[in-house]
Amino acid sequence: MGYIMGCVQLKDEYQEAAMHGYDDDKAKVIARLRRIEGQVHAITQMVEDNKYCIDVLTQISASNSALKSVALILLDDHLNHCVRQAAVQGGEVADSKLEEASAAIARLVRS
Amino acid sequence: MGYIMGCVQLKDEYQEAAMHGYDDDKAKVIARLRRIEGQVHAITQMVEDNKYCIDVLTQISASNSALKSVALILLDDHLNHCVRQAAVQGGEVADSKLEEASAAIARLVRS
Amino acid sequence: MGYIMGCVQLKDEYQEAAMHGYDDDKAKVIARLRRIEGQVHAITQMVEDNKYCIDVLTQISASNSALKSVALILLDDHLNHCVRQAAVQGGEVADSKLEEASAAIARLVRS
Amino acid sequence: MGYIMGCVQLKDEYQEAAMHGYDDDKAKVIARLRRIEGQVHAITQMVEDNKYCIDVLTQISASNSALKSVALILLDDHLNHCVRQAAVQGGEVADSKLEEASAAIARLVRS
Repeated sequence: MGYIMGCVQLKDEYQEAAMHGYDDDKAKVIARLRRIEGQVHAITQMVEDNKYCIDVLTQISASNSALKSVALILLDDHLNHCVRQAAVQGGEVADSKLEEASAAIARLVRS
Repeated sequence: MGYIMGCVQLKDEYQEAAMHGYDDDKAKVIARLRRIEGQVHAITQMVEDNKYCIDVLTQISASNSALKSVALILLDDHLNHCVRQAAVQGGEVADSKLEEASAAIARLVRS
Repeated sequence: MGYIMGCVQLKDEYQEAAMHGYDDDKAKVIARLRRIEGQVHAITQMVEDNKYCIDVLTQISASNSALKSVALILLDDHLNHCVRQAAVQGGEVADSKLEEASAAIARLVRS
Repeated sequence: MGYIMGCVQLKDEYQEAAMHGYDDDKAKVIARLRRIEGQVHAITQMVEDNKYCIDVLTQISASNSALKSVALILLDDHLNHCVRQAAVQGGEVADSKLEEASAAIARLVRS
């Protein structure tokens, strides 16, 4: 279940369905992001302290993987809530949500 | 030129050559890492504030690209200093530096 | 519009809607895949002919990007047809299609 | 050991050292590339036969990973031979080989 509170554009009845049960994932996502923030802070400190380059690179690769994992959780939640409800609602809302999701996936795959 | 102060394993004469001229890049790398740390902090805040999932994903993709760019600067510096001097020094030091660099590149490519 | 003929598990009425209009993209996807196949064949030939390593790497990176682009077309089609219709159909079909799509996106992001 | 026969720009004495022992990896790289070519051919056939989109995506992700693995072998060989010898040779040849390797790594990381 996702954190996405604002499935913008959805009618109230779909909005409500789309919002059901986010709270668990929101906490998990925030906890992971805080950990990544700490990792990046530690990487900066490593560079400040002239730590060995390869060790810095290892930490950057780990942060990248961790960010991707968070992105995949958010994307899964988004598909399961906003996109799903938009598809049920149909019409232009569905078209625009699906186009938007595809564009976000493309940015992530190429990042 | 890179920030890598510690080309571990290198003899002093190579060490010195490997260390020449890092200061500019060190400042640039730190500045970029601080900016990424700020980005990740802002992403956490977006999730706290229930901002729209797609906007969060866009920021995560941007942070990923930014981290990769920093990694490529560090890697370039590492090749130009530590690996280069290790190659000149030759023997096991060269072997081990090259193996280590390849492993770091593989982790980055797969992250 | 996508090439996906078989939105397995969908009821006939949704199946039909999900299949509408694939033909254009199918031809485009096949044309692109044939070009990539040709690229990989050319890369093999380059290695056979002892061509310069950096030039081989450049072609591999280009093939990777081209494969990702094809994957993004297929994924967009899949979301717009199979996933969309499954969401309308609802229930377990919707759940399983969404889970499957998320898993495919995760594999692509990490590939 | 790598397949790189042509470490262009290297003097003959370094060229020889850079070329020592490629033959094993060349065969392995060619075998892997042929397998990937077969995979891409099979993917094209899957699309021709209207196979399920998710199965096609799975194969594309696998081909991407396989191409990256080949690239990492070639890169490792390149660093161990051409770049290593260029570093020993020094001067502009070393500078240009290192710059070129960094650019190739950047293209691969971003592909």
